[in-house]
Amino acid sequence: MIANAFAPAERAAVYRAITERRDVRRHFLPDPIPEPLLMRLLDAAHHAPSVGFSQPWEFVIVRDPQTKARVHAAFAKANEEAAMRFSGERRTRYRQLKLEGIREAPINLLVACNRRRGGPVVLGRTHQRSMDLFSCVCAIQNLWLAARAEGIGVGWVSIIRRQALREIFHLPHHVVPIAYLCLGWVREFLPEPELQQVGWAKRDPLSDHLHWERYAAPANELGIIDGSTPQE
Amino acid sequence: MIANAFAPAERAAVYRAITERRDVRRHFLPDPIPEPLLMRLLDAAHHAPSVGFSQPWEFVIVRDPQTKARVHAAFAKANEEAAMRFSGERRTRYRQLKLEGIREAPINLLVACNRRRGGPVVLGRTHQRSMDLFSCVCAIQNLWLAARAEGIGVGWVSIIRRQALREIFHLPHHVVPIAYLCLGWVREFLPEPELQQVGWAKRDPLSDHLHWERYAAPANELGIIDGSTPQE
Repeated sequence: MIANAFAPAERAAVYRAITERRDVRRHFLPDPIPEPLLMRLLDAAHHAPSVGFSQPWEFVIVRDPQTKARVHAAFAKANEEAAMRFSGERRTRYRQLKLEGIREAPINLLVACNRRRGGPVVLGRTHQRSMDLFSCVCAIQNLWLAARAEGIGVGWVSIIRRQALREIFHLPHHVVPIAYLCLGWVREFLPEPELQQVGWAKRDPLSDHLHWERYAAPANELGIIDGSTPQE
Repeated sequence: MIANAFAPAERAAVYRAITERRDVRRHFLPDPIPEPLLMRLLDAAHHAPSVGFSQPWEFVIVRDPQTKARVHAAFAKANEEAAMRFSGERRTRYRQLKLEGIREAPINLLVACNRRRGGPVVLGRTHQRSMDLFSCVCAIQNLWLAARAEGIGVGWVSIIRRQALREIFHLPHHVVPIAYLCLGWVREFLPEPELQQVGWAKRDPLSDHLHWERYAAPANELGIIDGSTPQE
């Protein structure tokens, strides 16, 4: 039974990667990532589960400063729009956040989902069409954890229009951008998520997310915590 | 720089979890999972990255055989529909596959995305609405890797209608089912993915998924490998 479990030190290493992983936006160093290391990270991604073993991911490795500049411009535009969706003091604080490291990180990586991988009918995708997108996210999380173990920081830039990424990278219609990642050696990994450190949000107790046998709305949705009616 | 990297044995443990993780559908043992262990796995999930630190995941822990039976019935219905989407020899082989362990696994786990977590405007979700769904997938992959290190097998059941899960678990409209997982101790972890072992699909060389600076369609999409026109 526990014959299949890792030794205690190995288990601890896995949990360490999980708890010390960070979404890195600052602290990137300019030092290049050696190509064998980059390939280890991509191979970790490639070992993710994929629906029907379809391996739908495509990885575009970006080092060209001109490409990074185009992506950064698309980010800046979206970020200004995003700021306007917050109001008052929250908007002021939003503008002070550092939300990407596109130009500083030596490697940028576009992860996209090729919806033609695996053929026209993919086992396991027949009833949940988004399973191939989810497979790509599993690949990203594998890469993220492997990167942490290697000392490489990863930041996920989501404040950008998918259409901008499509245009910059000439993606055909059936290849969907999933994530634009920034990778690099980092000066430090923060002891806690940056959004927690700056007081934007804090980690919930796990128990707030647990349900036994059936779903029950969390307390803060019932207006118990903040007294307001939730909105969408 | 590499001061932030894990020691070699720790790095190896992280890669081991990544490469030895399996999607488990058979080989589940009936032995219960101790609750502290289950909580470690859920805590690993809870340490996933989440858009705007919104922590949008909800975990429903299922042990009731009656609930499992209802889920299994929904799977069986979808699976029969799925089989009909394959033809000829592929359909015959599809029917021979074991695609879930719902009733055998001591724990079933519904992971759902609560789209109201984080409030009406979530940092980083302003331009990519599906980021919260992706955060939940990162949580699932964390749990999957931690489970492997603990000797616990995890299987993702995707051949089921989301609407069936909504009904069985009384999910409100804004809580989206992401994954239905089966967890349990296992007799063994297969040395390679089961779909590869039975000849359904095989792992591509990583190089087939790599692009430098810009996207280029993979060779098999250009009809070079299988000589056919890709279809959607």
